[in-house]
Amino acid sequence: MTEPPITTPTRPGGIAAPVPFPPSAPIALPESRRYRVKNRLLGPPLNTDQLEHERLGKPTALAVFASDALSSTAYATEEIIRVLVPAIGFLAFSAYVLPITVAMVAVLVILVFSYRQTIKAYPSAGGAYIVTKDNLGLLPAQVAGVALLTDYILTVAVSTSAGVAAMYSAFPVLFPYRVVVALFFIAVIAWGNLRGVKESGRIFAIPTYAFLVSMFVMIGMGVVRAVTGTLGRAPLPEGHIAIAQGQIGAVGIFLVLHAFASGGAAVTGVEAISNGVPAFKKPEWRNARSTLMLMASCLGVMFLGISFLAAKLHTVPSERSTVISQIARAVFGDGPAGHVAFYVVQAATMLILVLAANTSFADFPRLASFQADDSFMPKQLTKRGHRLVFSNGIISLAVSAAVLVVFFKADVTHLIPLYAVGVFTSFTLSQAGMARRHLRLREPGWRLGLLINGGGAVATGVVTVVVAVTKFTHGAWFIMVLVPVLVAVVVRLNRQYEAESAELEYEVVAAAKGPTLRRHSVIVLVEKLDLSTVRALQYARTLSPTELRAVHVATDHSRAEALADEWHRLGLSRISLEIVDCPDRRLERAVLDVVSEDVSSGTTEVSVLVPRREYRAHWHRLLHDRTADRIARAVARLPHANVTFVPYHFGSTPVPDEVIQARREAAHDTGH
Amino acid sequence: MTEPPITTPTRPGGIAAPVPFPPSAPIALPESRRYRVKNRLLGPPLNTDQLEHERLGKPTALAVFASDALSSTAYATEEIIRVLVPAIGFLAFSAYVLPITVAMVAVLVILVFSYRQTIKAYPSAGGAYIVTKDNLGLLPAQVAGVALLTDYILTVAVSTSAGVAAMYSAFPVLFPYRVVVALFFIAVIAWGNLRGVKESGRIFAIPTYAFLVSMFVMIGMGVVRAVTGTLGRAPLPEGHIAIAQGQIGAVGIFLVLHAFASGGAAVTGVEAISNGVPAFKKPEWRNARSTLMLMASCLGVMFLGISFLAAKLHTVPSERSTVISQIARAVFGDGPAGHVAFYVVQAATMLILVLAANTSFADFPRLASFQADDSFMPKQLTKRGHRLVFSNGIISLAVSAAVLVVFFKADVTHLIPLYAVGVFTSFTLSQAGMARRHLRLREPGWRLGLLINGGGAVATGVVTVVVAVTKFTHGAWFIMVLVPVLVAVVVRLNRQYEAESAELEYEVVAAAKGPTLRRHSVIVLVEKLDLSTVRALQYARTLSPTELRAVHVATDHSRAEALADEWHRLGLSRISLEIVDCPDRRLERAVLDVVSEDVSSGTTEVSVLVPRREYRAHWHRLLHDRTADRIARAVARLPHANVTFVPYHFGSTPVPDEVIQARREAAHDTGH
Repeated sequence: MTEPPITTPTRPGGIAAPVPFPPSAPIALPESRRYRVKNRLLGPPLNTDQLEHERLGKPTALAVFASDALSSTAYATEEIIRVLVPAIGFLAFSAYVLPITVAMVAVLVILVFSYRQTIKAYPSAGGAYIVTKDNLGLLPAQVAGVALLTDYILTVAVSTSAGVAAMYSAFPVLFPYRVVVALFFIAVIAWGNLRGVKESGRIFAIPTYAFLVSMFVMIGMGVVRAVTGTLGRAPLPEGHIAIAQGQIGAVGIFLVLHAFASGGAAVTGVEAISNGVPAFKKPEWRNARSTLMLMASCLGVMFLGISFLAAKLHTVPSERSTVISQIARAVFGDGPAGHVAFYVVQAATMLILVLAANTSFADFPRLASFQADDSFMPKQLTKRGHRLVFSNGIISLAVSAAVLVVFFKADVTHLIPLYAVGVFTSFTLSQAGMARRHLRLREPGWRLGLLINGGGAVATGVVTVVVAVTKFTHGAWFIMVLVPVLVAVVVRLNRQYEAESAELEYEVVAAAKGPTLRRHSVIVLVEKLDLSTVRALQYARTLSPTELRAVHVATDHSRAEALADEWHRLGLSRISLEIVDCPDRRLERAVLDVVSEDVSSGTTEVSVLVPRREYRAHWHRLLHDRTADRIARAVARLPHANVTFVPYHFGSTPVPDEVIQARREAAHDTGH
Repeated sequence: MTEPPITTPTRPGGIAAPVPFPPSAPIALPESRRYRVKNRLLGPPLNTDQLEHERLGKPTALAVFASDALSSTAYATEEIIRVLVPAIGFLAFSAYVLPITVAMVAVLVILVFSYRQTIKAYPSAGGAYIVTKDNLGLLPAQVAGVALLTDYILTVAVSTSAGVAAMYSAFPVLFPYRVVVALFFIAVIAWGNLRGVKESGRIFAIPTYAFLVSMFVMIGMGVVRAVTGTLGRAPLPEGHIAIAQGQIGAVGIFLVLHAFASGGAAVTGVEAISNGVPAFKKPEWRNARSTLMLMASCLGVMFLGISFLAAKLHTVPSERSTVISQIARAVFGDGPAGHVAFYVVQAATMLILVLAANTSFADFPRLASFQADDSFMPKQLTKRGHRLVFSNGIISLAVSAAVLVVFFKADVTHLIPLYAVGVFTSFTLSQAGMARRHLRLREPGWRLGLLINGGGAVATGVVTVVVAVTKFTHGAWFIMVLVPVLVAVVVRLNRQYEAESAELEYEVVAAAKGPTLRRHSVIVLVEKLDLSTVRALQYARTLSPTELRAVHVATDHSRAEALADEWHRLGLSRISLEIVDCPDRRLERAVLDVVSEDVSSGTTEVSVLVPRREYRAHWHRLLHDRTADRIARAVARLPHANVTFVPYHFGSTPVPDEVIQARREAAHDTGH
C-alpha cells in the first residue's frame, strides 16, 4: 500500500471542506515503488555529470581488455582436437594440432598489425562499426554492427559455458547443474553491469594475472618436462569423444580447414583494445598499441604452448573433462602440490572466462547505442538508466545469451560453430574500411598502411569464408541467415525513424506561426454525479471554453434518468447534460462519435475531460474497470481531440465515521 | 497495421498545410482491432434491449434445467462403489449400494419438498443467495454465494471429466488425451456462452431426452433380465480398483457415511429450477413446481435403477471403464444391436455431462453478478459484454475449472471429495432462510412450510456435516478452508467499495456549489521543437490561461541549449521556456516537482500538456519509450494537476518525397 497522496486536515469547526484545497506547503510525495525497488537493487541513482572514464595504465589496461582474448585459449585447442580426433585419431596430435595453431597465430599477427593502424587512425573510438561507417558507409556498418552484436551474445554464452566447464572439470558433481550455474553467472554479471561496474582495474587484475601466471607456470613446467622426457601420455578420460582407429588415408583439406576454423575462436576479442583507446593514459594511441602487442604476445605464446602440450600428452576431451584440466593434471602430477596447482588453474580459468563475458556486457550496450543513435536500432537502447549504464542493452544481451545457454544446454562445442563468423566479418569490414581510408586520405606512410590493412582485409576475408563454409552445416548457416535478416530489419527501422523525424520537423516554423483554432469546446464525461464528476465540472469552468457540455453515455435507461433528475436537483442546469444512448454498451465508440462531431468542423479544439479516480493502493484500482483509460485511448485517434484526466484522489475528502456506519446499516437492512 | 486515422489531401497549389485542418465531413474512423476480433469470434454485438427471456414450456424446461441433476447419475453410483469395494469387497454390492442409494433418494425427496416452498415464495429468483440474503442477512448470503460459486466451478470440472470418461470408456485409445479433451470441452462451452448461447430448448432437448430414453431403456431391460434371471455378473475390467478379499468383520459406520457422502453428488443441481422460475410459462411457480417433481422422479428412478443393476452385476470400475459403461455392455449383450445400444448410451452420457457443465456457465456468472451488484465481488463481474452475457464471469469460471482439470488430471474420483460440501452448505442456508421467513411472515399454511423447510434445513445440515467429516482428509478440508477465506476476502472487498462510495457521494451538493479555483496555469512539456510540440503550444493558447509556460526537462545540456536557441529563432519567446535540470534523468520526478510548486498554493488548477505522438501502426509505437504515459501517471498523483494529452497524428502532415530523399542522402553522407 502506498501512502495517501495528501492528507487534508478537517477544518477547525469540525466540518470538512467538500473539495478541500490542499495546504500551501510544498507537496512531498513519496517515491514510487518502482524507484524504491531500483534503489534497493542497484544502489542510489547516478547523475549524468558523474559519467567519466577511468584512465588506465598499461598493466591495468591489459587486465581490463585482455580477458576476452586470453580466455579463449581455454577452449581453442580443445575445439581443434574435437574436430580432428574423431576423423583421424591420434594422427591429429602428431601432425596437425600444432601446425593449425601456428596458422591461427599467423592470422593473429596480421590482425595485430592491422589494428595498430586503426588505433592510430581512430584514437577516440575505433570499433568496427565506427571505422566501417566512416569509410564504407552506413549500410556496410550495419552489417559489421549486427555481426558484432550477435558475436557478443555468443561470447557471453560461450564464455559462461566454458567457465562452467572449468568448474565441473574440477568438481564433476556440478555437471548436472551446468545450465543453472551458467544462467546464474549471466544474471550476476548483468546485475553487476546494471549497477554500473566500471571497467575497473581492481576487479579485472586479479583473475587476469592469476590466469596468466598459472598458464605460464603450467606451460613452462610442461615444456621442461617434455624436453626432459618426463611427460607421458594423459590417461583417456571416462566418456571421451570418439577416436578414429587404424590407418588413416589421405587427410582432407576440408577437415584441416574445419579444425582451423574451430580454432578461430582464439583470436576473438583482439578488437577490444581498439574500442577502448580513450581509456588509456596519454599518449593514448601509443600506450594502446604497446598493450595490444603485449596482449597478442601472451595470447600467441599461451595458444602455442597449450597446443604443444596437448599434442605431446594426446589429451582427448570428454564431456566432463576439458583439455586444459587434463594438461594441468598431467603437468602438475598427482602429489599434494600438484592437486593444489590443478585447482588453482581451474579456478583462474573459470574466473577469466566469466570476466570475458563481462567484456561483452561493456561492448554490446555501447555498440547497440551507437547504432540506435544512428536510428538503426530501437531508440530505447540509447537511454542511460538508473546508474548511467545502457540498461536496456544490458538486459537485451543477458536475455539473448540466456536463451542460447538454455537452448544449447551450456555446451561449448555446440555453440562454437555459430561463433567467429560474426567477428571475422567485422574484422574484414573494418580492415577494408581502413584500406579505403588510406587510399582516400593518403597520409604519410599510407602505402605501408594500405599494404597492412589491405592484406589484413584479404586474410580475414579468407578466414571468414573458411569459417562460414566449414562450419556451415554445423550451425554457421544460422548466423549467415540471421545477420542479413537482422540487417534488413534495422534498415527498415531506420526508414521508419527517418520518416517520423522528417514529418515532425517539416516546416515547423510555418506551423509555429500558424493560427490557433477559433472555437474551444469542452466535453465532460459523466458516469455518475459524484465528487469526481464535480471536480471535473469545476475544472471545466476554469477553462472558460466557447462551449461546455456534459455527456453521459447511457447503457442503462433508469440510471440515466436518475442522473438527469439529480443533475437538475443539484442546480447544475447551467451546464447542459446530454444523454447519449449506447445500446451496444461500446462506450469508447459512443464517446468517439460525440467528439468526432465537434472536431469534424476543423475549426474547433475539443477538450475531453475524463474524471479519473486515483486510488490509494494498487489493489483498490484492480477492483474497477479501466474505462477512463480505454476511452482516452480511443478519443486520441481524432485530430484536435485533447483528452484531459481530471484526478480525484481518494482520501482527499474526510468522511465522518458516522456517515460510513449509517451507510453500512442501511445496506444490511435491505429486504426487511 | 491499422489504417491512417485521417488522410488530409494536399492543397490544390501543391503546398501542404503545415498543421492541416481536417475536412469538415464527419470523421469515419475504422473500428479497433480488438472490436474486429470480437466480431469475428463472437458475432455482431447485441444491444441491451435485446436482453429477453425465453418462456419455456414444461417439456423444454425439463430439458434445460435437468441436465446438471440428471447427469450426476452417470457417476454417483460409481463413487459409492469406489468407497466400499476396496474396504469390504463384494459385500458392498449385496448389502450396501442399494440402501445407501435409497437414503440419498430420501434426501432428494426432502429437498424437493423444500424447494417447492422456495419456488412459491420467490417466483422471481429464488437461488440460495437471494433467499439467504433476504432472510438471514448479507453476511450469511456471502457464505451461501461463495460456497455455490466454488461448487459451480467443481461442477464444470467434474462434469467435463466424467464426460471425457464416458468417451474413453467407449474409445479407450482416447484415454491419454483426456486432459486435453476436457480442456477443449471447457473452451468450447465458454466460447458458446461468450457468444451468448441462450438456455435454448432446442440445444438441450436432444441430449437430455436421448439420455433419459437410453437410461430408461437400459434400466428397464436390465430389470427385466434380472427378474428373469438372464443377467449374470459383469466381467472384471482390466486395471480395476482394489477389491477387499476374505471375511469382512464389522462394517464401520464411518465407511457407510463416507459412501453416502460420495453419493451426495447425485442431488446437486436440484436447485437449478428455483433459480429459473421466471423462465417458465405462466403460471410460473406452478409450472416450475411440477417440472421439479418430474425431474426429481426421473432422477430418483434412474439413480435407484442404476444402483440396483450395479449391485446385481457386481460392476467394479477401473480407471478406463465406468460403471455405467459396464452396465450398458452387460445389459445389451454382445450382439450387433447391443453394440449399437452401448455406443448410444455412452454418447448420450457424454453429451448430457457436457451440457451439465453448461448449466454452471449460466449460473456462475449470474450469481457472481448478484454478489458484485451488492459490492461483494469485483464490479467487473456486473458488466455485460459484447453479446450481453457476463463475459468476465464466464472467463473466470472457465479458467478456474481448467486449472482444476489440469491439477486433478481430469480424474472424477479425485475431484468428488471437494464437491458437494458447497452445495449442501447453500442448501442448508437457503432452507434455514425459508424457515425464518415462515416464522416472520406467518402467511397461510406457514406451519406446514416451517415444518418442511425446518426439516429440510436440519436434514441438509446433517448431510453437510457428514460430507465434510467423511471426506475431510480426502480433499473436503480444502473447500472448508477456502470458503471462509473467500468470504473474508469478499467482505474486505465490500468494505473498500463502501468506503469509496461513501467518499464519492459525500456532500456532493455542497461541492457542486463550491467555487472554482482562482488561477489556471498551463505547463507545456517540451522535449523537442517539432510539430507535436507546436500542436501543444497552439492548443495551450486556446485555453487562455492565467499563466502559460513551456518546460523542458534537460538530461543533456547541449540539447537543451540548442532547444533554447531554436525557441528564440522561431519567435516563440512570447511563451517562456523554462529549462529544468535533471541530472539523475528521472523525468517523472522532475515534472512532478515543477507541477507540485504550482499546485501547492491550493488556488491554482494546473493543466499539464503532454504532446503525444499517435502512430499509424502498433510496431511504430514499440520503437519509442512511453515517457508521456509515465509522466502522466506520475503527475496524476498531485491534486488539481490535470494531465492533457495533445495528440499529433503521424500522417497528418504530408511530407514531399524530395524532402525525405534529401534527408536520407544527408544522413548517408556523414563522415565524408
